[in-house]
Amino acid sequence: MKGPDAVRTVPSLDLIDRVAAADIGAIARMITRAEAGQNECRPALAEIYKRTGRAHIVGITGVPGSGKSTLMGKLTSSIRETGRKVAVVAIDPSSPFSGGAILGDRIRMSELAGDKGIFIRSMATRGALGGLARASLDAVDVLDAAGFDVILIETVGVGQDEVDIVQAAHTTVVVSAPGLGDDIQAIKAGILEIADIHVVSKCDRPDANRTITDLKGMMTLGLSLSGATNWPVPVIATSALKLEGVSELLQSIDQHWAFLETSGELDKQKKRIAERRMLKTAEEILRDKFQEHRDGKVSTLVEQMITHETNPYAAAKDLLAEIRMEK
Amino acid sequence: MKGPDAVRTVPSLDLIDRVAAADIGAIARMITRAEAGQNECRPALAEIYKRTGRAHIVGITGVPGSGKSTLMGKLTSSIRETGRKVAVVAIDPSSPFSGGAILGDRIRMSELAGDKGIFIRSMATRGALGGLARASLDAVDVLDAAGFDVILIETVGVGQDEVDIVQAAHTTVVVSAPGLGDDIQAIKAGILEIADIHVVSKCDRPDANRTITDLKGMMTLGLSLSGATNWPVPVIATSALKLEGVSELLQSIDQHWAFLETSGELDKQKKRIAERRMLKTAEEILRDKFQEHRDGKVSTLVEQMITHETNPYAAAKDLLAEIRMEK
Repeated sequence: MKGPDAVRTVPSLDLIDRVAAADIGAIARMITRAEAGQNECRPALAEIYKRTGRAHIVGITGVPGSGKSTLMGKLTSSIRETGRKVAVVAIDPSSPFSGGAILGDRIRMSELAGDKGIFIRSMATRGALGGLARASLDAVDVLDAAGFDVILIETVGVGQDEVDIVQAAHTTVVVSAPGLGDDIQAIKAGILEIADIHVVSKCDRPDANRTITDLKGMMTLGLSLSGATNWPVPVIATSALKLEGVSELLQSIDQHWAFLETSGELDKQKKRIAERRMLKTAEEILRDKFQEHRDGKVSTLVEQMITHETNPYAAAKDLLAEIRMEK
Repeated sequence: MKGPDAVRTVPSLDLIDRVAAADIGAIARMITRAEAGQNECRPALAEIYKRTGRAHIVGITGVPGSGKSTLMGKLTSSIRETGRKVAVVAIDPSSPFSGGAILGDRIRMSELAGDKGIFIRSMATRGALGGLARASLDAVDVLDAAGFDVILIETVGVGQDEVDIVQAAHTTVVVSAPGLGDDIQAIKAGILEIADIHVVSKCDRPDANRTITDLKGMMTLGLSLSGATNWPVPVIATSALKLEGVSELLQSIDQHWAFLETSGELDKQKKRIAERRMLKTAEEILRDKFQEHRDGKVSTLVEQMITHETNPYAAAKDLLAEIRMEK
């Protein structure tokens, strides 16, 4: 991290000052650089990280069709109306089938409004080898350092990357819609359990009560893994049609933050988040190194696996020893 | 791998001989040991690995409700009727909502039949930190070494672990059911793309044609990532009700294998599989080491992250250097 890196950082350090001064252009540029994942960016991100730790990070997840996007728009406005600065980091699904324009309307809205107290950013998903979680959390760091009070992370709640991202939030909101069926519920199960707050959207629909009952039943069975113990996980009914429930949701989000702070759970929560992030980052470094050695050591070990001179476990050990992880 | 390990291996080496002799009890015990993931098991699994490489490994995936389980039962019987020995490794979902008894009936069936040419094993999912993919592929090795001609790996196609498992197969079959809706399709998208063979189940239903058309349309758009290029991915309609399509499915599975062998794609496929498996194993070793150091180095680094003395990237680097990966 000496020598050439130090030289390259000079413009970034200027950029950091502008990020800290909440310059929207600088924030966007810093996030783009973080997203590209180049090593040149590391010293700047290290500086950014020093200035983090004040924002309330809220993960909001729900499958496509859950009404999550509409809710996000209204929640963002509600938070802003309280005078707080709010940022949204939205994780677009990588699938070519679902498209990536979910946030389009809201981005235009906020741009038109010209309100510097709202910032919305869609993250493009990257290759199958990951990097999305790292890039998204770096983006959250940038927004935290820029002084946003609340940072909402929106995901569709599918895949390990997304679970990793949601688990980096202080407060996790899971949005369910009535009538999505048991199949979807099963798929979502892994993420339902980590909710600090449940939202049942589209509560103007007649079958909404069943979904609310199901969720409450699930919690009665003790199937809640909310990070904070002694926090009674609420189930909030919302309706975009009737404009209901958004203020209750914001109230619950604020109550959860107050609970974390007063109960001492926030420190534990921060440790859990830091621990997971360190592991995930180490995994990403491993994958990067794997790519670097792909035509060299990796290729040799693959040949040896195929000829049975080695086996997957021994090859993985050899690879880890070779990679050494210095630098 | 010397000294104490060599001593501990003695009983395992006997077990290996019995696995190679297709002793059902020995196979089950070896898989159980592999599942437990103890280091004592490594030398035996290394021996097992040397005897692998003959079986045709077929991954079959589809969301709950896709009719996959019924199809699996019929396919297993069909393969056995051709005189080949067939094994099934079924990955149970870890969710408490979906239960784990999917295979119950079939296990009882095969046990009653007393046919040593069929072996069915459910893998229990383990903690959130993974290990399932590793254990499942070790189980496949055991069955390969035991001389099973075809090994079917069944997953519900949700989560990174499951994608990893399916990607370890030579042939990937993705089962879709009509009427599961666009939401599910979006969720499954990541796995739809890796199909070598598509199956549309429940084709007695009137809306099946739309699903078939959708899948064919997807492939026309070039959205197929089937490992083997120049392989025309078929879409096969099956109906458990009318007992249709299973023989066509088996025919396609056999054709894909023949294609891989004659086109030279099999060698490339095996390299891809070995490479991915090495990386996944290295990641698991990293996670194991992380757990080992949790109260030591990890805890120190977490404290430093929280006080901003370090940042996630630097901490991950430090951790990797500390872990060193020897032994």
